[in-house]
Amino acid sequence: MSIIIKNIELNNSIKDIYIEDNKITEISNNISTEADHKIDGKDKAALPGLYNSHTHAAMTLFRGYADDIPLNEWLTQKIWPNEARLTEKEVYIGTKLACLEMIKSGTIFFNDMYWHLPGSFKAVKEMGIRAALSSVLIDNLDKDKAEEQKKEVREEFRAYANSSDRISLALGPHAIYTVSEDLLIWCKEFAEKNNLLIHLHLSETEKEVNDCIKNHGIRPVEYLNKIGFLGENVIAPHSVWLDNNEINILEKNKTTLVYNPVSNMKLAVGKAFRYEDIINKGINIALGTDGCASNNNLDMFEEMKAAALLQKFAYNNPSSAPAHNMLKLATENAAKAFRTGGGVIEEGKLADIILINLKKPELVPHHNLISNLVYSANSSCVDTTICNGKILMKDRVVEEEDNIIEEAQKLAKEFFSKKDKY
Amino acid sequence: MSIIIKNIELNNSIKDIYIEDNKITEISNNISTEADHKIDGKDKAALPGLYNSHTHAAMTLFRGYADDIPLNEWLTQKIWPNEARLTEKEVYIGTKLACLEMIKSGTIFFNDMYWHLPGSFKAVKEMGIRAALSSVLIDNLDKDKAEEQKKEVREEFRAYANSSDRISLALGPHAIYTVSEDLLIWCKEFAEKNNLLIHLHLSETEKEVNDCIKNHGIRPVEYLNKIGFLGENVIAPHSVWLDNNEINILEKNKTTLVYNPVSNMKLAVGKAFRYEDIINKGINIALGTDGCASNNNLDMFEEMKAAALLQKFAYNNPSSAPAHNMLKLATENAAKAFRTGGGVIEEGKLADIILINLKKPELVPHHNLISNLVYSANSSCVDTTICNGKILMKDRVVEEEDNIIEEAQKLAKEFFSKKDKY
Repeated sequence: MSIIIKNIELNNSIKDIYIEDNKITEISNNISTEADHKIDGKDKAALPGLYNSHTHAAMTLFRGYADDIPLNEWLTQKIWPNEARLTEKEVYIGTKLACLEMIKSGTIFFNDMYWHLPGSFKAVKEMGIRAALSSVLIDNLDKDKAEEQKKEVREEFRAYANSSDRISLALGPHAIYTVSEDLLIWCKEFAEKNNLLIHLHLSETEKEVNDCIKNHGIRPVEYLNKIGFLGENVIAPHSVWLDNNEINILEKNKTTLVYNPVSNMKLAVGKAFRYEDIINKGINIALGTDGCASNNNLDMFEEMKAAALLQKFAYNNPSSAPAHNMLKLATENAAKAFRTGGGVIEEGKLADIILINLKKPELVPHHNLISNLVYSANSSCVDTTICNGKILMKDRVVEEEDNIIEEAQKLAKEFFSKKDKY
Repeated sequence: MSIIIKNIELNNSIKDIYIEDNKITEISNNISTEADHKIDGKDKAALPGLYNSHTHAAMTLFRGYADDIPLNEWLTQKIWPNEARLTEKEVYIGTKLACLEMIKSGTIFFNDMYWHLPGSFKAVKEMGIRAALSSVLIDNLDKDKAEEQKKEVREEFRAYANSSDRISLALGPHAIYTVSEDLLIWCKEFAEKNNLLIHLHLSETEKEVNDCIKNHGIRPVEYLNKIGFLGENVIAPHSVWLDNNEINILEKNKTTLVYNPVSNMKLAVGKAFRYEDIINKGINIALGTDGCASNNNLDMFEEMKAAALLQKFAYNNPSSAPAHNMLKLATENAAKAFRTGGGVIEEGKLADIILINLKKPELVPHHNLISNLVYSANSSCVDTTICNGKILMKDRVVEEEDNIIEEAQKLAKEFFSKKDKY
């Protein structure tokens, strides 16, 4: 299939963009070649599709279910007991709803860690976007549980690895306080042998750091370094409570960190991600929403704005975290970490493009498109979403939208009516 | 004119709402009376229209013009020199663009302080929403300038007071560091004589507090109290740098404070509004976006979310600033401060109602509408905006939208091309 986008604003000039199969094949001033689909770019701008680098997508079903309560009560009484009741069906429908929300807000990739991976795999495959999917691995330091998890991972990879060009499987050891050293090292070895990414929650709370010092005598990053876990293939969301030595270790290991500003604020983790200290070391940083129970949406426009605002506020510097850098966290930095070959609009790159409607009042006047996108836009400014050379949304219409919403609404109602809601 | 809204979700039940002229006349289960306009409420919820309690509306024209730079450079090199060049025409068009953006994001009232009041008055009158408008009063402690300002205010009130039932004039002494004691006291007396509100920037930065202590030996609120300025008619945006004694004084004077979380973060004012300490004293709090140079939009949905997130983060408490309270800041608390007789949907109240489209993916599932609105919605979830009994937006369509956008785009281009942009 081919697509031509005529007269679109791209990096401050007007161009034509030609897409063949899943690649951008030509960007120039006047392309006359015919295509299967022709899009008029008038009053629109082209932007690389956005990457959400840390999610638990099926948690859309928990949106608005439990807010404004203390963290421990939230986890132990609201989230965990309900997660334990989830089946593949809820994960499938919840992830479809998540994909719909992402397509409508210009996101074409997400890095997910959740339960019942076959459900999310099926959802992403149907919805047409990209994902790195990992099952949550938790052994609670129990040897038998660890062996069980290894077996499940092996089976999962046999069944699903390489079965979609848009979906990669990754390893998802939850965090150092829920996963044994043995299982962490096994993940590392399995990942190296199979050239895989590893997705691990890192230093989200001060408690994690204090517990690690109590148990191992060293801080979390030092511990992971000591057991040989870190590396270029590790993607570490949160990474809030890092000291300077830990930042040096992460730099040496070329680990990618994921900044989650909205979730960090909502759950009151007590500290802001050390963006300037980390970026100044040349460490790769991406951006993510976290799950819908702690955000409560998957909107990367909101996340970019929150990312900039939190830095300026927390470190008392209005020049920190400028708009164009925040857009990079949500595009090319993530594409680099996830090795997709996308994240920028250039010839030869993946055809993952979103079109912005420049006639939305919040994007007027047009002094600086990037500032407008980060500080003023909302998701409804996205008019068209193209992923892997396919048009997933045109004029804000996504096929099957009504069905997905109806089904998700119905399933959530059934699921929560089985237990007392509060 | 009359409007009937059939089968709409209102406070967790399904009702009919009848509007006659500018009032809600009936809310009940099945109203059979015919009306000039009939709205189907299926899959929608009714909410009071939102109040933006601190803006400089015409600054929409500065949106994205100067971001991510130090505060002093931003003010002295980017904002002030350009504001000095504004005429009534720019203020008229900039305020029309602001009103359009507000209507499209469910805001039906704004409290504005800006230059060239006749321009903003004309814009609001045409666009159909409500506003409290005040001219910026700055004398820089110069006696002649103070007399000039008093004269201008008197003329302004003669020309515009009571000429619209949607627009009230207020007094806008800019701040204690730009307005002399004489002019502050004159404002207070003029306001009391004519039953007016006063809009004054208060303690936005630590510098304001330190300078006040240097010049007067006391803190800003103590100074305002000493000269008899404070009272129930004073609306004080920002109010970030307050100590406990100042909070007590504000409580005794029944002053309304306006929380501006996005602007405070973006400009890095160094401290978060003391929401819990202030609300626990029973002080009335409203919510505002500030101008588009420091936000960069007028979206009260974003502002409610930022308001909750900043409190949780800054004061390390995930239960602080819960969603239903944030909605109150943007509705009934503001309506009380501005004495409109609106802010809630009840019989006899103003017909200022917005309808939310519940089929947006970010509002699914429907566990808790208020949580969804504050933490997940964006402005495009507003389907219909009714103000003063008139439908200003239906199915997201606002009359004249394209013209306003075209005109604003053109004027901004002309205005900034007259000077070097950077």
